Amino acid sequence: MKHFLDIAEINRESLIELLDLTANMAEINRRPVPKVPALRGKVVATVFFEDSTRTRISFDTAAKRLSADVMGFTASASSINKGESIRDTIETLEAIGVDAFVIRHKSGGVPATVTKWSDASIINAGDGANQHPTQALLDSYTIREHFGGQDLTGLRIAIVGDVRHSRVARSDIQAFTKLGASVTIVGPSTLLPSDVTGWPVEVCHEFDSVIGDSDVIYMLRLQRERMNSAFVPSLEEYAQRFGLDKSRVNRMRAGSIVMHPGPMNRGVEMCVDPAEISNSLILRQVTNGVSARMAVLFKLLGAGGIPEGEG
Amino acid sequence: MKHFLDIAEINRESLIELLDLTANMAEINRRPVPKVPALRGKVVATVFFEDSTRTRISFDTAAKRLSADVMGFTASASSINKGESIRDTIETLEAIGVDAFVIRHKSGGVPATVTKWSDASIINAGDGANQHPTQALLDSYTIREHFGGQDLTGLRIAIVGDVRHSRVARSDIQAFTKLGASVTIVGPSTLLPSDVTGWPVEVCHEFDSVIGDSDVIYMLRLQRERMNSAFVPSLEEYAQRFGLDKSRVNRMRAGSIVMHPGPMNRGVEMCVDPAEISNSLILRQVTNGVSARMAVLFKLLGAGGIPEGEG
Amino acid sequence: MKHFLDIAEINRESLIELLDLTANMAEINRRPVPKVPALRGKVVATVFFEDSTRTRISFDTAAKRLSADVMGFTASASSINKGESIRDTIETLEAIGVDAFVIRHKSGGVPATVTKWSDASIINAGDGANQHPTQALLDSYTIREHFGGQDLTGLRIAIVGDVRHSRVARSDIQAFTKLGASVTIVGPSTLLPSDVTGWPVEVCHEFDSVIGDSDVIYMLRLQRERMNSAFVPSLEEYAQRFGLDKSRVNRMRAGSIVMHPGPMNRGVEMCVDPAEISNSLILRQVTNGVSARMAVLFKLLGAGGIPEGEG
Repeated sequence: MKHFLDIAEINRESLIELLDLTANMAEINRRPVPKVPALRGKVVATVFFEDSTRTRISFDTAAKRLSADVMGFTASASSINKGESIRDTIETLEAIGVDAFVIRHKSGGVPATVTKWSDASIINAGDGANQHPTQALLDSYTIREHFGGQDLTGLRIAIVGDVRHSRVARSDIQAFTKLGASVTIVGPSTLLPSDVTGWPVEVCHEFDSVIGDSDVIYMLRLQRERMNSAFVPSLEEYAQRFGLDKSRVNRMRAGSIVMHPGPMNRGVEMCVDPAEISNSLILRQVTNGVSARMAVLFKLLGAGGIPEGEG
Repeated sequence: MKHFLDIAEINRESLIELLDLTANMAEINRRPVPKVPALRGKVVATVFFEDSTRTRISFDTAAKRLSADVMGFTASASSINKGESIRDTIETLEAIGVDAFVIRHKSGGVPATVTKWSDASIINAGDGANQHPTQALLDSYTIREHFGGQDLTGLRIAIVGDVRHSRVARSDIQAFTKLGASVTIVGPSTLLPSDVTGWPVEVCHEFDSVIGDSDVIYMLRLQRERMNSAFVPSLEEYAQRFGLDKSRVNRMRAGSIVMHPGPMNRGVEMCVDPAEISNSLILRQVTNGVSARMAVLFKLLGAGGIPEGEG
Repeated sequence: MKHFLDIAEINRESLIELLDLTANMAEINRRPVPKVPALRGKVVATVFFEDSTRTRISFDTAAKRLSADVMGFTASASSINKGESIRDTIETLEAIGVDAFVIRHKSGGVPATVTKWSDASIINAGDGANQHPTQALLDSYTIREHFGGQDLTGLRIAIVGDVRHSRVARSDIQAFTKLGASVTIVGPSTLLPSDVTGWPVEVCHEFDSVIGDSDVIYMLRLQRERMNSAFVPSLEEYAQRFGLDKSRVNRMRAGSIVMHPGPMNRGVEMCVDPAEISNSLILRQVTNGVSARMAVLFKLLGAGGIPEGEG
């Protein structure tokens, strides 16, 4: 595996291998000194044309725990503003000495295009409404860690909210279903795909009708640009129909869990404080995100074998 | 000691212990390779909701000299702009893996509030007009280093300028008096607290009347927002009455010193170039700031015992 | 050698010594783990008052490969905005603990002035239209590496474009001619110096007349502020007369090379894609830039002797 671009390109066996590798990394992260020299001398560049401090810091932490050096590059502080093309930026950074690029861009397909210009490994950290594959890996790991087993066979997962514009939803649906789960997408028709032909999902417009039957309620972030628009005319109505509030949490089935990719819109899709419910795995997702990104970086750049520890 | 929030919470014995630990750190900083592995594997996040490059770099340097990893987070480059709450930011960073948060915020009390949301250690790097406790530690250390002895007993310290709005003044007054010094605050009534009941200080409105009697002249920075306002109608008059110029330096008593927390307003409160007077400890404060912050980080995160060197 | 400010101050022997040291560093950079502990415990501050992500990252990478710690400081995020002077900024950073300052500023002479305020080593990373000496070192190294030999004796180098406002051109001309090359500057009279008395160059206004006779065609970046101005009234005409297109590349002599300091303006001075011609060394310049900056940092801060490897 040279790049990590799209869950669609990864088969079930490779996904399970990455989940197992994530578990190895999680073990490293529980040590007193959570560091291994596995990627010493390697350089990881985080190239974010779209801001996301939390994802950038997660990759940054993952790379440092593997002893790689990290080169941070954000579009706002760069020659991109002097009219330099993405290609020239990538070629320049590679010539300075980069082994893996972690790329986020507001347009779908940019990370895949970059693979044509560079010999380095490319990791997609979110491209438009297309894919966010490390999110799918960390989400799958978080669910598997909670429910046990080798994959997600038999689990019923509801993904609620703006599925239409969500790269998280696209990647999650592919990963969850490859791993054996059944997925229902829930939201108003303006926020669901207009045509789900070929999507391995059930469609539902009533949140309340899936609450009691789901093992996982996965809440999506409502992007600010959808609010008070044709997509979501009234935030109050949206929160009432599709927000997760205490009453809905109380109607969830025993053993089920709540997830969210963050950052949350409190009072919009999240009308309950996750700290006040016992079945939220939202912060667990964040913690597992570091392990999942370590697994991907190690898989792409590591010499092979599970890294030995130092501490 | 888990947090470092407020000089008021720290007794004389603990302050002296921190000054002694600062001296140990200063010894490390004089070595050819000023690094110790004391905090290897620990992660320190500098979370600055208010800009301060010099304080952030000082903490950053302190953490790196103890071999901690540093995660930099400034509000301008973050999800705070997407409406994420401070609590969600802190919880997210802690879930990624943070052992200590160094927090600066324009509102007093924010660092104390954060302790309710996090199991990590919280260090107050300046909160509104409330406290700046590491500044008080480095200032106390700088004075003790110069005059010798175990504490500041018998020293007369004049703090000059905008005491009313200054977190540096609040923290310094508490630290200096706990350590045995007597403190006089000096400034126009618009810049001194309207009620000093309970403050262990003398009040003076004439700079010239304390010049000859003080062991330490501590000049405060005049914040830009006070200039040309009801607080300070005329900068010229302010500089004339409360600025430190060469004539006032010449009237200082033998052996006395000049201090300033930086950054200076030259021509406003500082009308003399510190490089041209022999008794300025202003750059010494900056150097000692790294040692003081190392002492605090080591005290909160270290396993105990004075760290062994490498170099 | 304590500072690295201006090619004019460096004699031929010292330049050749730096080129040889750059070759040693290039060897380190080809190793699987391109890191040496040569500058462990040293702190390099990159102080960029003018943005340049590529140059900053190049120095940053160079310092890290020598195991120095790097302190990044950009004017936009700093107390400079609070009115602090450059001198106070430098003195503060030095007091925190900086061994070398890498300084870029839009005004010529700033790095030289800083040497008066600081005991640290100062490296000029570009000052106004004055000098960019590490660019000259990496360019000289790139040419020598390609053509072989100890220096550049006998080579004919054409520097094309906005020589008048270019610090790259000033530094390159001095270095190339000290090393034995002959240099011709090429451009419209509005972009060449009005008086070249004392410049060791030939002057030419017709790009096509030097194409077939040059060993090196060095294209300069046309700064945006020159475009559509009295300097360059029409970009189309400029590209036609002074841009490097495929037809001109085809007329270059056998064995000759194309260089550019980046970032390129495609369609302005660069009308050919460097990836589509076989004789472009533009990305090689970027790679060599890290080695050249390692050589300078090691020369100024190293204890002496060629560093031993780790990996």
